[in-house]
Amino acid sequence: MNKQEKLAMVESALEEFYGDQQFALSLREAVLYSIHAGGKRIRPYLLLEVLEALKVPITLAHAQVAAALEMIHTGSLIHDDLPAMDDDDYRRGRLTNHKKFGEALAILAGDALFLDPYALIAQADLSSQAKVDLIASLSLASGSMGMVAGQVLDMEGEGKHLNLEELQTIHANKTGKLIAFPFQAAGIISGLDARLQEDLKYIGELIGLAFQVRDDVLDVTASFEEIGKTPQKDLQAEKSTYPALLGLDEAIVFCNHTLDRANAKLEEISRLVNFDKGPIVEIVESLRINA
Amino acid sequence: MNKQEKLAMVESALEEFYGDQQFALSLREAVLYSIHAGGKRIRPYLLLEVLEALKVPITLAHAQVAAALEMIHTGSLIHDDLPAMDDDDYRRGRLTNHKKFGEALAILAGDALFLDPYALIAQADLSSQAKVDLIASLSLASGSMGMVAGQVLDMEGEGKHLNLEELQTIHANKTGKLIAFPFQAAGIISGLDARLQEDLKYIGELIGLAFQVRDDVLDVTASFEEIGKTPQKDLQAEKSTYPALLGLDEAIVFCNHTLDRANAKLEEISRLVNFDKGPIVEIVESLRINA
Repeated sequence: MNKQEKLAMVESALEEFYGDQQFALSLREAVLYSIHAGGKRIRPYLLLEVLEALKVPITLAHAQVAAALEMIHTGSLIHDDLPAMDDDDYRRGRLTNHKKFGEALAILAGDALFLDPYALIAQADLSSQAKVDLIASLSLASGSMGMVAGQVLDMEGEGKHLNLEELQTIHANKTGKLIAFPFQAAGIISGLDARLQEDLKYIGELIGLAFQVRDDVLDVTASFEEIGKTPQKDLQAEKSTYPALLGLDEAIVFCNHTLDRANAKLEEISRLVNFDKGPIVEIVESLRINA
Repeated sequence: MNKQEKLAMVESALEEFYGDQQFALSLREAVLYSIHAGGKRIRPYLLLEVLEALKVPITLAHAQVAAALEMIHTGSLIHDDLPAMDDDDYRRGRLTNHKKFGEALAILAGDALFLDPYALIAQADLSSQAKVDLIASLSLASGSMGMVAGQVLDMEGEGKHLNLEELQTIHANKTGKLIAFPFQAAGIISGLDARLQEDLKYIGELIGLAFQVRDDVLDVTASFEEIGKTPQKDLQAEKSTYPALLGLDEAIVFCNHTLDRANAKLEEISRLVNFDKGPIVEIVESLRINA
C-alpha cells in the first residue's frame, strides 16, 4: 500500500467518525477545519508504515487508531495557538481555529478532540486486550505524564536559560511521546513482546527528538512561505531552542546524529524479527538536515 | 459500605493517580486544586451506589472508574469558567482555576483531566471487555456527541428563545450524559444484559434532567452562601432556563415529576433483577424541591 492510500484510509476514518454527527454542527465545523488544515499526518503515517514494516496487513481498525492519534495532536495545536498560550494567528498559512471560530468554540473543539479518540479506538475491530493497551499508552503519552506536562514545562521554561537535559525533557514530553506512540502502537497491534515494543518506542523517541531539533533549526533558517507560520517566533518568545543552546551548526549535527542512532536501532530490530526497515529508514533520512 | 467510605475510596484513587507524578508540579497543583475544590462527588458516588444496589462488592477498580468520571467532570468545570466561556471568578466559594493559576495553566489542567482518565480505566483490574465498553461509553458521553456538544449548543442558545425540547437537548448532553454514565457503567461492570443497561442509563438521564432543572431553580431562589457562586448568573447571561421557560412553580413541578418517573423505572428494575433500590430512591428524593 502506498503512502497516498494509507493516508486516504486515515482521512476516511476521520470523516466517518465526524461525518454522521447530527447536532452541534458548528462544533463539527470547527473540529473539521483543523483536522483538514493541511497537516502532514506524520504520526498516523508512521503507525501504518511501521505496521507494514512488521508485515501486518493494514485494516480499517489500524486507520482508526491512527486517526485517534491525529485527533489528539490536532486538539493540542488548537489549544497551543490560543491567546493565553502561544497567541498565534496563523498555522500552516491559514487562520488559527480561534481566529476563525472564536476562542470559546476553539477551546471546545480542542476538548472534543481530546475526549473523542478513545471511543474511536474502543470501537475498532481489534482484540479487547490490544485496545486497552493502546488506550493506556495513548492516554499516558498525551496527558499529565506526557504531552500536556511537556507543554507546561515549555511554558515555564520561557525566558529561562535551560540546559540540554531540561530542553530534552520538555520535548520528550511535549512532542516526543506522541511521535513515539505510533511505534509502540504498532508493536502492540502486531503482538511483539514487551522488550521489542520498548525498542520500537525508543526509535520513535529518537525520531521525535530529531523532529523537534529540525523544527527549531527551520524556525531560524526558513521563511514564512516555507513553514507556513511566522518564522523566528521562538526567538521572539525568548524560548530555549537547540540552535540557541548549541549554536546552529551544532544543532544540525545533533539532529543528524540522533537520526543515526535511530537507524542503528532499526538495524538491530531487523535482525531480531521479520521487519522491513527500508521505508522507516527513508522516513528517518527525510528528517536529515543538509548542512 | 457507607457514603463516607465510598467517597474515601474515590479520593484515594485520585490521589494515587496524581500523587506519584514527578514532573510538571505546577500542572499537578492546578489539577489537584480543582479536584479538591469541594465538589460533592455526586457522579462517582452514584456509580458506587448503583453497583452496591446491584450487589457488586466495591473494589479499587470501581473507585478508579468513578475517579475517571470525576476527572472529566472537573476538567469541564475548569474550562467552563474560563474568560472566553462563562468568565467566572468563583466556584464553590473559591477562586476559579484560571484566577488562581492563570489562563494557560487552567486550559492545560482541563486538558490533562480530559486525557488522563482513560489510562486510569485501562489500568483498572477489570476484564478487558468491560474496560473497552466503559471507555467507549465515557468517551461518547463526554466528547463531541455528549458533554462538549451540549456546551456548544448551550453557548449558541444564549440570548435566544429556546423551546422546552431544545433546552432538554442542551442539558441532556451538557450535564445529562455524565450523570447517566455511572448508571450505565454499573450495568456494564455487573454484566447486565443490554436492555437492562439501557434502562439503568435512562434512570440516570432522568436524574440528570431533574438535577439541571433543580440547579436552574436554585439559581433563581438561592443566595451566594447557599450555592457558592454568584446567583442569578444565568439570568444575567440571558440564558434560557427552566424557570424562565416554564415559570418558577411549573419548573419545580417538572423537576419533581421527572423524579417520579425515575422512581417508577427503579421499581420496574427491582422487579426484574436482584436490585436494592432503596438507596437510589433516597438519592432521587434528595433532589426533590419542596415548593
